[in-house]
Amino acid sequence: MNRPIVGITMGDPAGSGPEITVKALSDASIYDRCRPLVVGDAKMLEQAKHFVHHPEIKINPVTDVKDAKFEYGTIDVYHLDLIKDVKEFKLGTVSKEGGRAAFESVRKVIELAMNKEIDATVTNALNKEAMNLALADEGKHFDGHTEIYATYTNTKKYTMMLAHHDFRVVHVSTHVSLREACDRVKKDRVLEVIELAWKTCRDLGIEDPKVGVCGLNPHAGENGLFGTEEIDEIIPAINAAKEKGINAIGPLPPDSAFSQMLGGWYDITVCMYHDQGHIPTKTIGFVYDREKQAWKAVEGVNITLGLPIIRTSVDHGTDFYHAGKGESNELSLVNAIDYALRMAATR
Amino acid sequence: MNRPIVGITMGDPAGSGPEITVKALSDASIYDRCRPLVVGDAKMLEQAKHFVHHPEIKINPVTDVKDAKFEYGTIDVYHLDLIKDVKEFKLGTVSKEGGRAAFESVRKVIELAMNKEIDATVTNALNKEAMNLALADEGKHFDGHTEIYATYTNTKKYTMMLAHHDFRVVHVSTHVSLREACDRVKKDRVLEVIELAWKTCRDLGIEDPKVGVCGLNPHAGENGLFGTEEIDEIIPAINAAKEKGINAIGPLPPDSAFSQMLGGWYDITVCMYHDQGHIPTKTIGFVYDREKQAWKAVEGVNITLGLPIIRTSVDHGTDFYHAGKGESNELSLVNAIDYALRMAATR
Repeated sequence: MNRPIVGITMGDPAGSGPEITVKALSDASIYDRCRPLVVGDAKMLEQAKHFVHHPEIKINPVTDVKDAKFEYGTIDVYHLDLIKDVKEFKLGTVSKEGGRAAFESVRKVIELAMNKEIDATVTNALNKEAMNLALADEGKHFDGHTEIYATYTNTKKYTMMLAHHDFRVVHVSTHVSLREACDRVKKDRVLEVIELAWKTCRDLGIEDPKVGVCGLNPHAGENGLFGTEEIDEIIPAINAAKEKGINAIGPLPPDSAFSQMLGGWYDITVCMYHDQGHIPTKTIGFVYDREKQAWKAVEGVNITLGLPIIRTSVDHGTDFYHAGKGESNELSLVNAIDYALRMAATR
Repeated sequence: MNRPIVGITMGDPAGSGPEITVKALSDASIYDRCRPLVVGDAKMLEQAKHFVHHPEIKINPVTDVKDAKFEYGTIDVYHLDLIKDVKEFKLGTVSKEGGRAAFESVRKVIELAMNKEIDATVTNALNKEAMNLALADEGKHFDGHTEIYATYTNTKKYTMMLAHHDFRVVHVSTHVSLREACDRVKKDRVLEVIELAWKTCRDLGIEDPKVGVCGLNPHAGENGLFGTEEIDEIIPAINAAKEKGINAIGPLPPDSAFSQMLGGWYDITVCMYHDQGHIPTKTIGFVYDREKQAWKAVEGVNITLGLPIIRTSVDHGTDFYHAGKGESNELSLVNAIDYALRMAATR
């Protein structure tokens, strides 16, 4: 079987993206599984290889996928020449230049995938504030990666999934204020996300997926005692899903839903807002080193559902704090690459 | 040392409270550590002992603490005669009678503690809907246990803490809709909860407590990009706490705060709403049995801070589903009793 070509964005170059990318691609076995192509600025990768003590690795800037070598020891970078002066570029801070670079890397990786020049896309973290500072000039705004992908692949029905082994969550809304998240809990949208969740599980080979659906309010509102979104929006969506033959279960009290999923009650859980799904996933997926006050490991992958192309992502931020120190952990990026490969195998 | 007298409410009698109470008190070692006194209806305990296969245990109804035996093999019940006809009383469902019984048990246990007839109080779960059905006649309404305790101990500044080993969370609001929870994020209240959190850690022997403070919005709003409560309310509260010498850290992105606490970054974390703190605590504290679809174990204790009396509680609901089957797990109740004893030891 041909090894899939995986496009990997470098993320905001002021963060840990370039470093963890070099770390991930300095493991020879990755090249046995796929053909990785970094998308971003080759000069930042050239700098990052020294932060992580891999001066021996060659950086190969290309402007055509055909020119990539895909050989261990060389990191191929689809070079977009985004950073004017690497020495002047400040690590660890929000900047227009960093935000613009992150955004253009994402736009290019999407373009390459839509043109079928690459088989899957994996993203490093971007800083939303930096990106939107850069995009404000042209009157654009994106909530995050997911929305960029939706726009440039012309996708209307999509959602963000976080996966950690059998633990899977999808979200009705993501990067909006909690107040706006409450407003976005509408029957049609909840039903749409239930359907995406169900379809994803089917794609993963689960015959009759059990789809847990959380309430919005504490205790799922306790029959309207605190909050009525369950009665007005969520229960009608669950009933509509059941009519379509989906085994949708809820509305679940959000505080016990996730331990139930860990116990095998659900194959996936529909969450009403960003932190409802992110808090449990990151609580079980991140492992910190008490002495170093740094991640020992980050498990968990971020996946956009509903797109015509494959997109997985690291499940952490830009880690500005550690940028340039070579200390950031690449495990989540490696997990994201491997999840993308699993999805590529069934397409 | 005199063993502390611990008052234990039976909870909503339609739930698992009576059963898990008999289970917990059928372990002889409990009587080495304390003098337990159940508060509720002796007839329900008499029935429950058969559900859990302990027909040998004697139930001793008392109406004065002095009449309790506090001997292993006998369960003393401060008898309030709350259920008219045990045979007619339906388990597993919401009822006025059950709600009234749960409420009166709580009111009595508070009274006994305020009168110093008992040393600590521990509560089993009540059903909020049932209780408020019962209280509607007299125009009363309580969000939950915590608010009943606050009212009858005349406490103005209080909050709910969940504890699971070194993992501790306190809440700015609890049993209100998520929209109302957003409204309740106000500087003065956030500061009050930071101070309660700090004081609790000091009482637990931590010299310079590190108090993590979560944001309300995803990513703590990313500098105002989605939501402004961090800028308008939470950061001013953190700054005010710092001026008082409290090591308050935040606003933290809520999705990574809890893995950081597991890593030892914080001794306690201030949460802006019920599920922000409950989701991570219950995700790590509940362990389900995949085959039986039942709790294997529930760790974690619910504690009300700021009261003049000690109150700990089980960290789960009434478990109506399993009521009468003898299958509910008593571990959380035992944990709650032991936590109450630890607190009683320092008073």
